[in-house]
Amino acid sequence: MSRWTMSANLELNQAVERLNAGGADILNLAFGESRLPVLASLADLLAAAAHETAYGPVAGTPAVRDAAAGFFGRRGLPTDPEQVIVTPGSKPLLMAVQLVAGGDVLLPQPCWNSYAPQARMAGRTPITVPIPRECGGVPDPAALRAAIRTARARGLDPRLLICTLPDTPTGTVAPPDLVRAVCEIAEEADLTVLSDEIYRDTLHDVRTPLLSPAEVLPHRTVVTTGLSKSLALGGWRIGLGRFPAGALGERIRAGVLAVASDLWSTLARPMQEAAGYAFGDPPEIRHRLAASARLHGAVARTLHSIMVAAGARCRPPTGAFYVYPDFEPLRAPLAGLGITDSPSLQQYLLDEYDISVLAGHQLGDDAGALRFKAATSMLYGHTDEEQHAALASTDPVSLPHIRRTMTRIETALADLHARCRAEPVG
Amino acid sequence: MSRWTMSANLELNQAVERLNAGGADILNLAFGESRLPVLASLADLLAAAAHETAYGPVAGTPAVRDAAAGFFGRRGLPTDPEQVIVTPGSKPLLMAVQLVAGGDVLLPQPCWNSYAPQARMAGRTPITVPIPRECGGVPDPAALRAAIRTARARGLDPRLLICTLPDTPTGTVAPPDLVRAVCEIAEEADLTVLSDEIYRDTLHDVRTPLLSPAEVLPHRTVVTTGLSKSLALGGWRIGLGRFPAGALGERIRAGVLAVASDLWSTLARPMQEAAGYAFGDPPEIRHRLAASARLHGAVARTLHSIMVAAGARCRPPTGAFYVYPDFEPLRAPLAGLGITDSPSLQQYLLDEYDISVLAGHQLGDDAGALRFKAATSMLYGHTDEEQHAALASTDPVSLPHIRRTMTRIETALADLHARCRAEPVG
Repeated sequence: MSRWTMSANLELNQAVERLNAGGADILNLAFGESRLPVLASLADLLAAAAHETAYGPVAGTPAVRDAAAGFFGRRGLPTDPEQVIVTPGSKPLLMAVQLVAGGDVLLPQPCWNSYAPQARMAGRTPITVPIPRECGGVPDPAALRAAIRTARARGLDPRLLICTLPDTPTGTVAPPDLVRAVCEIAEEADLTVLSDEIYRDTLHDVRTPLLSPAEVLPHRTVVTTGLSKSLALGGWRIGLGRFPAGALGERIRAGVLAVASDLWSTLARPMQEAAGYAFGDPPEIRHRLAASARLHGAVARTLHSIMVAAGARCRPPTGAFYVYPDFEPLRAPLAGLGITDSPSLQQYLLDEYDISVLAGHQLGDDAGALRFKAATSMLYGHTDEEQHAALASTDPVSLPHIRRTMTRIETALADLHARCRAEPVG
Repeated sequence: MSRWTMSANLELNQAVERLNAGGADILNLAFGESRLPVLASLADLLAAAAHETAYGPVAGTPAVRDAAAGFFGRRGLPTDPEQVIVTPGSKPLLMAVQLVAGGDVLLPQPCWNSYAPQARMAGRTPITVPIPRECGGVPDPAALRAAIRTARARGLDPRLLICTLPDTPTGTVAPPDLVRAVCEIAEEADLTVLSDEIYRDTLHDVRTPLLSPAEVLPHRTVVTTGLSKSLALGGWRIGLGRFPAGALGERIRAGVLAVASDLWSTLARPMQEAAGYAFGDPPEIRHRLAASARLHGAVARTLHSIMVAAGARCRPPTGAFYVYPDFEPLRAPLAGLGITDSPSLQQYLLDEYDISVLAGHQLGDDAGALRFKAATSMLYGHTDEEQHAALASTDPVSLPHIRRTMTRIETALADLHARCRAEPVG
């Protein structure tokens, strides 16, 4: 039974919350929960739908599927309501696709920490492939080709490739050329692509091009998304899947619906009512999405600057609410502080600075690397008032409550940097 | 991918709803959805909790776990809040327990139609064992001993036994002596017991003894339940699990929490607020549970009489909202009507009488047997007013809207019986 271990991000978050409840003051950068107030209209819709207690269709009501089809259509993916299903968060959906698609699963390294456990749960072997230098969320094309060859030689059967656009943990978006190169390999190798686009509406700048693999390989790409990140509704557990048109897509969707019928039945009906409204993209939703993305971008860019100033290499964030610094340039002096790998780096930041980050090895990265994920999404304020101010501001980092937090991080990282400079380099 | 097929009950329900939406008038006895109005206080609590958007602990908030511990305590199972978790319905919980417990899964035959697919999803082999003559929900003890022996001889490794008290599909409750006999075998064979008690609060008569395997084998029994059946909240997806105290229980709970963290995160937070209230068993909840159970019992007993009058053998229902008639006594004349097995029996009732039932083979029973499951839970009225009247009545079957439905079923079954008598018996 020891093969089942708790999801690192959720476990760390619970540990930090327990410590803080006991009087500690740990700054939680380890958990990708977007702490922003729920839109009043969404809360009202949930409240109004409280009398909805029937199971309804496994895939979701016709109304929510119509809205979801429109949602994808407005994002470059014309969609029939028969191609979509809503789910209780995207986690069970991601697992069901891995179960149904058949074969082993190719993952970018690093990637979100639940893909690999889900693959194992589904009886698949996760095969990790390093990301390219410029971004995360997709494997490096040359490494992908090699990984498929090696996996087949080892007797594995890679059949599914998971991409994340925009990406967690790097906060980057794979550029279109790279998406095309990866898709070309997927086509050649007869892979199904699972494109996790849960951060799509958090692109910091709408002019950043985002090419979905579903546009390149329309007949072999499943897209998943949800409202946890873009509308800060993690605790509502609303997920959404889009299956490709055509025979393969219909087979996967039927299989996922079969799994759904035995594994979760449906997304809770009151949630479907609220989701239907959000998927419709009315003006206030679009406004909230834009305000949130601007906020995520502003704070993530500041966090990026802090990491770079402290001596890390770090890809500039362009989506989601993460940075993924690499302290390799400071390996020698960090070793003098006892920091030799990502677990000791995570521990040092917690012990010395009361800052909680998620070490890269928890995301499938080499434990020996000096990388971690830091999320900005819980830094926007403790009260609804502070969070609303953050959403409304064109310069949120200048707000006193965010400024204070960023200064705390900056001071800690600058101190780490100073300690490094004080170390004799061996 | 063809191994994934849609849950029979959900699929049939969707098909019937589509046909009825298109103008058909099919009576749906195939689906165990309790159609009763939501309690106003529960709807109010859900509405008031709409602003709760944080993930929170995977196991559920301290408040809902405290309430759940009390819930079990009042049902003969003293429980610490650390022993429970709340889940989005009990389906993913049941699957997670099968995944984590290890080994293959022993099931009563017939049983609820999602256990076996869940076992297969978890990579386990389902091993079905016939139920005894007097009830369903547990395997016949002698047959269980033999099945364990045979399974081991075949190289299988039975490690988990699922029981259902009260039972679907039979609507019966295994008597305490039988539970003890089954538990004795589980202890000898070192099995973990998963006791699905989702129908516990639907016992038609509170004086009917219900002995939980968790009382007999406290250290090796996991109990699952939820609010879908007892409080008619299927569309809210609220499940609950209780893990045994001791090392085995802690190991299973930790494993299930690990699976949960990667597969569903948490039960939606607003649902947790409503669930916490319901698990507290305040007077209005107890009153609603009692009224619902009385209603289920009255209608199920009438349905039982109709089946027996039509020539079927049928265990008298004492819990849940099902009967499971066996038309074996009419095998010869039914054959003359083209009815030779459970699929043709299900089809005949649909074609000739517009009555939808769930054939026994869908529940793991022998397809050659002439058995089906019929649910009463969607017969209580089409409007809130009718349903409230049904809940309030001491003789709900005498209410015109329920009377009409029961007469329709009675007429159909009496006609079937008459056609049988008209058949020359070969």
